[in-house]
Amino acid sequence: MKNLVGACIFGQSGGPTSVINASAAGVFLEALKQKNITAVYGAAHGIKGILDDRLYDISKEDKKELELLKYTPSSALGSVRYKLKNAEADETDYKRILEIFKKYNVRYFFYNGGNDSMDTCNKVSKYLMKSGYDCNVIGVPKTIDNDLYGTDHCPGYASAAKYVATTMMELNLDATVYDKGQVTVVEIMGRNAGWLTAASALASYKGLGPDLIYLPELPFDIEKFLVRVKEIMDKNKGKCIVAVSEGIKTPEGEYVAEAISAEQMKKDNFGHAQLGGLAIKLADLIGNRYGVKVRGIEFSLMQRCGAHLASRIDVEEAFKAGQKAVRAAVAGETDKMVVFERDMSSGKYVCKYKLMDVALAANTEKKVPLEWITGDGTMLGQAFIDYALPLIQGDCKAPLEDGLPRFAKLKKVLVK
Amino acid sequence: MKNLVGACIFGQSGGPTSVINASAAGVFLEALKQKNITAVYGAAHGIKGILDDRLYDISKEDKKELELLKYTPSSALGSVRYKLKNAEADETDYKRILEIFKKYNVRYFFYNGGNDSMDTCNKVSKYLMKSGYDCNVIGVPKTIDNDLYGTDHCPGYASAAKYVATTMMELNLDATVYDKGQVTVVEIMGRNAGWLTAASALASYKGLGPDLIYLPELPFDIEKFLVRVKEIMDKNKGKCIVAVSEGIKTPEGEYVAEAISAEQMKKDNFGHAQLGGLAIKLADLIGNRYGVKVRGIEFSLMQRCGAHLASRIDVEEAFKAGQKAVRAAVAGETDKMVVFERDMSSGKYVCKYKLMDVALAANTEKKVPLEWITGDGTMLGQAFIDYALPLIQGDCKAPLEDGLPRFAKLKKVLVK
Repeated sequence: MKNLVGACIFGQSGGPTSVINASAAGVFLEALKQKNITAVYGAAHGIKGILDDRLYDISKEDKKELELLKYTPSSALGSVRYKLKNAEADETDYKRILEIFKKYNVRYFFYNGGNDSMDTCNKVSKYLMKSGYDCNVIGVPKTIDNDLYGTDHCPGYASAAKYVATTMMELNLDATVYDKGQVTVVEIMGRNAGWLTAASALASYKGLGPDLIYLPELPFDIEKFLVRVKEIMDKNKGKCIVAVSEGIKTPEGEYVAEAISAEQMKKDNFGHAQLGGLAIKLADLIGNRYGVKVRGIEFSLMQRCGAHLASRIDVEEAFKAGQKAVRAAVAGETDKMVVFERDMSSGKYVCKYKLMDVALAANTEKKVPLEWITGDGTMLGQAFIDYALPLIQGDCKAPLEDGLPRFAKLKKVLVK
Repeated sequence: MKNLVGACIFGQSGGPTSVINASAAGVFLEALKQKNITAVYGAAHGIKGILDDRLYDISKEDKKELELLKYTPSSALGSVRYKLKNAEADETDYKRILEIFKKYNVRYFFYNGGNDSMDTCNKVSKYLMKSGYDCNVIGVPKTIDNDLYGTDHCPGYASAAKYVATTMMELNLDATVYDKGQVTVVEIMGRNAGWLTAASALASYKGLGPDLIYLPELPFDIEKFLVRVKEIMDKNKGKCIVAVSEGIKTPEGEYVAEAISAEQMKKDNFGHAQLGGLAIKLADLIGNRYGVKVRGIEFSLMQRCGAHLASRIDVEEAFKAGQKAVRAAVAGETDKMVVFERDMSSGKYVCKYKLMDVALAANTEKKVPLEWITGDGTMLGQAFIDYALPLIQGDCKAPLEDGLPRFAKLKKVLVK
């Protein structure tokens, strides 16, 4: 626990979310207030901006624009996917980081991201400690995948979940509008954890969601899937809506999208092989098998950058996560990640902010509990609804200018 | 001009929009007030509901739910794509319609839809007149394609345009976040008219839109396109965002998606042919040619049912279009469609509601004026911005319940 005086660097890493910039706003606005923090820098493209000595001087930004970061999706400083080697194997990057930290007298380092980014954060933290260079390092969690260990949920998840649930409700109304059968398959992000796909169950809970939901937590049997779709079609005037996680795998462990290309296409005698994303492939399988109208839809990048549908809870929590990181670091904490703890003792949802060893978050994955997946593995139960519903409350978006969102415009003045 | 006393039927037809139900609310709430209208019916699945004698008694609905229709996307009564044969060729359907109209003493008929639906409306109107059956028929325009003749714009267009522009801005922030090159191709609806794809220029106007926009109004040369993308990549750190209308065609008149499957795939020596939608195909072409990361995105159904992003102007105008249709019919008008006239004489945008012969709207198509397409045919000029901007003003969406939209729930009580 050391109280340090010096500059701070904040970096954003990994896939963007609707609220990663809200955490940036939390870090920046708090750091600019702290007397022990002598300069506030933003790293261009995360850790790469440090290696490249490309830092933005945040004191040069208008306060109003920093406030607008709360409602601006994606990573305003630029993001990066760069995995640091182990320091034992190759110290080059670490030496460079230390060099830059010394050059600018950086005594606070905040890194915002998911599992991989917390790995970076952890490695940098450990290296600095080993080197005897005093620098308080705090990780700020972020991921629409919601798969970080040790935190009730992750900033970014709730807004993406709200996008998925709201859009599913709208799609449900659209996809059932004709008096003819139609099967709609929607592909949702989440390679290994099904949290975001599970959010489509919030729409089902409102009576306007998918009939079937498939998470990567369970193996996906293509034949069983086709039978289940037919069952729904038979009882529902030929209509069926399916939500699938991009990461679903066959019982043999192969990604379903790949498995379909190979085996199934041949088996179903496709005349006009319509390859493409998973949703289109599954939809085509159904179309070929049952001769019904189908549509494959991918929520694509929209689900992670749809800030116009951000959850107010998410924006507030993401902001506070950044703010708490700065306060903790100034108070002497280091080598930690901010985590959320859910407190329902008052009968209402309250989020408490805690710290956890950042090493625990590095490269781990938290999956949807199997007991939350109900019936034959195609729906989420009340436990999930109770978990997710408090997180998507309230609206919170950028002010309108000409009827369109007024997002933050940073000057991005490079430090000389 | 006959003042009639009797029942009214309202039907929805064609592809859903975010605001077609706002027009339904306008018709229903106004019709329920009119003394000359003795009963208010909604046809299940448009004209098919009349042929099948499936009518809902709207007087049985809660007023509150009818109000919520304003914010509920898609077609609450169900839609249909059913083209009436010419009465000269086959009178069967017309006789049935007349039979149903007589059965319920229907003296007012309102039909909500695009070109094809106005064709239906026109045919029914002409047949009733020929038969000497008094019934005032008014068409209510609707289409995200904005391609109806005789009206400044169509209800449904503005909300879809707002969805496209807002989402494009968010995507722009997401797709440019890494320090590596990336080309993003977004496919937008519009088979023959490029109005909706053009709306992506509103995002470009805000500095966060596509670099290149391709409308079906101009032929699409694949080689020239690849050269233009490269030019943008070269001056923009390998990044380029493209918006294409689903309906773009080669100079030979073939849909580009089909042309690529055949010729181009071979030419570019695709190892792993990634067929799919137009966006994915174009993205893959670029990826193969230039070895850059690419992503193809389709706005799919979301662009036409994204009521959470509805334009307030659009919702209001769609509601009033329904209301005006009823008032005009009660005043004795028939065989007309409600049209919008833009009045800028006060210096501000004002929408005036007029009537036009419905025959003029049937099966016509209004395209984007070629002189609004600028430069080398890949961007929209100020004339388009001036046209579109007033239409997307203001927000207007369903109240939240559990953080999710509370859409209208109709009882849909069938008339015995």
